[in-house]
Amino acid sequence: MTRILGIDPGLLHTGWAVIESRGSTRNYVASGVILPPAKLSFAERLAIIFRGVDELCEQFQPDCCSIEVIFVNVNPKTTLILGQARSAAIVAVANRDIPVYEYEPNKIKKALTGAGHADKSQIDKMVRILMPAAHPKTPDEADAIAIALAHSNMNKFVL
Amino acid sequence: MTRILGIDPGLLHTGWAVIESRGSTRNYVASGVILPPAKLSFAERLAIIFRGVDELCEQFQPDCCSIEVIFVNVNPKTTLILGQARSAAIVAVANRDIPVYEYEPNKIKKALTGAGHADKSQIDKMVRILMPAAHPKTPDEADAIAIALAHSNMNKFVL
Repeated sequence: MTRILGIDPGLLHTGWAVIESRGSTRNYVASGVILPPAKLSFAERLAIIFRGVDELCEQFQPDCCSIEVIFVNVNPKTTLILGQARSAAIVAVANRDIPVYEYEPNKIKKALTGAGHADKSQIDKMVRILMPAAHPKTPDEADAIAIALAHSNMNKFVL
Repeated sequence: MTRILGIDPGLLHTGWAVIESRGSTRNYVASGVILPPAKLSFAERLAIIFRGVDELCEQFQPDCCSIEVIFVNVNPKTTLILGQARSAAIVAVANRDIPVYEYEPNKIKKALTGAGHADKSQIDKMVRILMPAAHPKTPDEADAIAIALAHSNMNKFVL
C-alpha cells in the first residue's frame, strides 16, 4: 500500500489530497485546502503553506508526493507567484526526505482521462468516478485528488 | 544592535550574509554561499536551500531578513526557477517568525551607492568600503552583504 500526497499549490488556495494505492485499488484518505489569510505578508503566507504541508506529512505520513510542473503562461507575473507557493509546498515534503514527483499538466490529464487535452469538467468527473468516497468542495481539492490519482496510475512501482 | 540576514537566492548558489547594525555602525558577522549539488532533484535542491537558511537562523539568530524582490525579465523560465529558490529561503526565515523585508533591486542599489542604476562593480566597491572586514569570495556573497547593508541604511528603526 502506497500513500500518495497530491498537491495543487496556490498562494490563495493550496489544495491537498491523500490517497492510498495498491494494485488497481485506490482508497480515499483525506483532502482539503490550505488558505493563507490574505492580510498576511507574502513571506508569512508562504510559511502558512509550508507549515500546512509539513503538518499533513506529519499526520498522514505519505510515501511520496505528486505535484504539477508549472510553465510560464500568458501571465508570467502570476506564474512567478504560483511558483513561489509551489516551492513552499515542495520544500515541506522534500525536507522530510519524501520523494516529490513532478508531472506536466497534460500527463496528469492523460493518466486520468486518457486524453492530454481533457478539460476541467472531465477531470472533475473522473475524480468523482475513481474516488467516490471523496466529496471535493473546491476545484483545488478536486485537482489535488486528480494529481494524486494520476501518480498512482502512472507508476508501476506503486503496488 | 540589530542582526540582519541578507539573502541573494539562486538554485545553483544562494549567497547569504549576517551583519549587525546600530546607529551608523555596521559590523560584519559572517557570509557564505549555499551550494545545492546539481545532481540532486529540483525538490531536493530546494530543500538544501531551506535547510541551509534554517541553520543560519539557528546559528546567528537574526532579527530580520532582507531579500530582493524579483521581476519577470527577458527569461521568464529562469525567473520562475529563481522564484522557487527564493521561496525556499523565505520560508525558512518566515517559518521562524523572523520578519522578511523585500526590496526592489534599484532601491538596494540606491541605498548603497546613492544611484538606482549602479552597476555590479559599484555595488562590489561599496560593499568593500562599508564592510572592510568582509572578504566576499563570490558575487552572490557580495550581493547578500549588499542586500543586508541596504536594509540597515533604509530602515530608521534599525538602531
